[in-house]
Amino acid sequence: MTNVLFAALDARWEQYETPLKTAFTEAGLTVDLRRDFAPDKVDYIVYAPNSDLQDFTPYTRCKAVLNLWAGVEAITGNETLTQPLARMVDEGLTDGMIEWVTGHVLRHHLGMDAHIHGLDGDWRNVAPPLARDRQITILGLGALGAACAQMLAQLKFNVTGWSRRPKQIDGITCLSGADGLTQALSTADILVLLLPLTPQTENMLNAETLATLPKGAVILNPGRGGLIDDDALLAALNSGQIGHATLDVFRVEPLPKDHPYWSHPNVTVTPHIASETRASSAARVIAENIRRGENGLPFLHLVDRSAGY
Amino acid sequence: MTNVLFAALDARWEQYETPLKTAFTEAGLTVDLRRDFAPDKVDYIVYAPNSDLQDFTPYTRCKAVLNLWAGVEAITGNETLTQPLARMVDEGLTDGMIEWVTGHVLRHHLGMDAHIHGLDGDWRNVAPPLARDRQITILGLGALGAACAQMLAQLKFNVTGWSRRPKQIDGITCLSGADGLTQALSTADILVLLLPLTPQTENMLNAETLATLPKGAVILNPGRGGLIDDDALLAALNSGQIGHATLDVFRVEPLPKDHPYWSHPNVTVTPHIASETRASSAARVIAENIRRGENGLPFLHLVDRSAGY
Repeated sequence: MTNVLFAALDARWEQYETPLKTAFTEAGLTVDLRRDFAPDKVDYIVYAPNSDLQDFTPYTRCKAVLNLWAGVEAITGNETLTQPLARMVDEGLTDGMIEWVTGHVLRHHLGMDAHIHGLDGDWRNVAPPLARDRQITILGLGALGAACAQMLAQLKFNVTGWSRRPKQIDGITCLSGADGLTQALSTADILVLLLPLTPQTENMLNAETLATLPKGAVILNPGRGGLIDDDALLAALNSGQIGHATLDVFRVEPLPKDHPYWSHPNVTVTPHIASETRASSAARVIAENIRRGENGLPFLHLVDRSAGY
Repeated sequence: MTNVLFAALDARWEQYETPLKTAFTEAGLTVDLRRDFAPDKVDYIVYAPNSDLQDFTPYTRCKAVLNLWAGVEAITGNETLTQPLARMVDEGLTDGMIEWVTGHVLRHHLGMDAHIHGLDGDWRNVAPPLARDRQITILGLGALGAACAQMLAQLKFNVTGWSRRPKQIDGITCLSGADGLTQALSTADILVLLLPLTPQTENMLNAETLATLPKGAVILNPGRGGLIDDDALLAALNSGQIGHATLDVFRVEPLPKDHPYWSHPNVTVTPHIASETRASSAARVIAENIRRGENGLPFLHLVDRSAGY
């Protein structure tokens, strides 16, 4: 019997209890899944960073903490967490992100907003350029960034990806390091932010990097709110340096009702819906990691605590 | 020396003269390309259906008429045209169509319009369903319909295609015939019209077929305006049977300023920009067909005059 503690808010328990039990059975595991256990009886913790559990010290027998989400910035600084920590890499999360990013890239590429707002009888029939004539840059080539890059390349966009460490992906111009960043930004018609939030990436989009983009560039941020210096972005939008920003994530969520992003004519707010972990596929990822732990195999998707993701 | 007559309006000549000459040279052809010839000297006609040339009788030596566009409904009824007629199947045209269709499918799938119009501080953070939970039906599985179907399947949408004659495409549920049409319509969350306009397809979307769609279905028409009975569509939009229509093509273009489509809250008008033939790639298709004709090889993309496309 493997004891698995579910440490997340009530709404998550309702969402995950059945999918997790199904996934454990399918993985051939015999699991006691509960929301409370004596800490020294717990083998694994299924964890949401906003749960009440913040002190991992008494969980002396715990073999791994399995995060329900992709983002781990709210937990990597917790010094009581000495157990291995795995991020969620969920097929549903990846697919949803591909759909949001591809959809909003095509929206800006095709100039759809003018048609959605309505042209009032004005027949401006000039076809947009083709994807092959458009440069897309994606900052971050993790599971989500790489998957989005590949779908955009399938649509024949010119895709440049940037990551801290050098990577190689077929059909994508992959850049890294500080010089690579300048080059990646300077060519971007549309810039997509899919970096993890770490002390190194916070405010990565600031007055200086915004000025490196071509005038009128479009920004999509389905990554993390803290990647953007909001005041610098608003200034760049007001000056016309940035043509439009479509933002899904914010430093404070829900985005406060009086935040200037809501009413700015060149900002589209989507309320953190770009993607979410889907219970059924995420439960299978968690079950697979527990199966691995029980069989002495290495865990999937381990967080590098020194890098912060 | 091969004599090629360019029979199209002035604007097309400006657009095509250089790309055609380049493509002929690249194909190893020695061509005299002109806008006027004695009719009995002409070997091939590069043709736009809105050109002044409407009587093909004197072109006794002409081996083929090579259409600049995909749509041939304005010429198939011309009884003086006895020469082989080839449609344009242009990579640029196909790519542009894939971009427009994929973009507008994702727009409706993600519910983007609410965000583009602005939610005014209302944080409704419910992620949309995944593509795998959405049914797309494409009527027409020619070069354009098949290419769009395959891209949507790559995004993991459930794609059903319908064509007059049975077809088979990997990853697509292919239906045909009258029963197939009812089935294809009855499951469509989003319906895409990419049929040619023929006497059989005119008004294919009428009161009866609109009623076969699930309530609230979305219609995309980048095909031909005549495929839709406009009065029936407006009635279905007003009753809520159809949730939204995004229309790129119309019976009369430019769409008259007082047409109810312009102001209808559930209609998006894009002014025939879904796709257009791109001169450089189209010129290569024309050169290839002339090369084939000069070498006794069968022409590509020949129109079946009895079927009308």
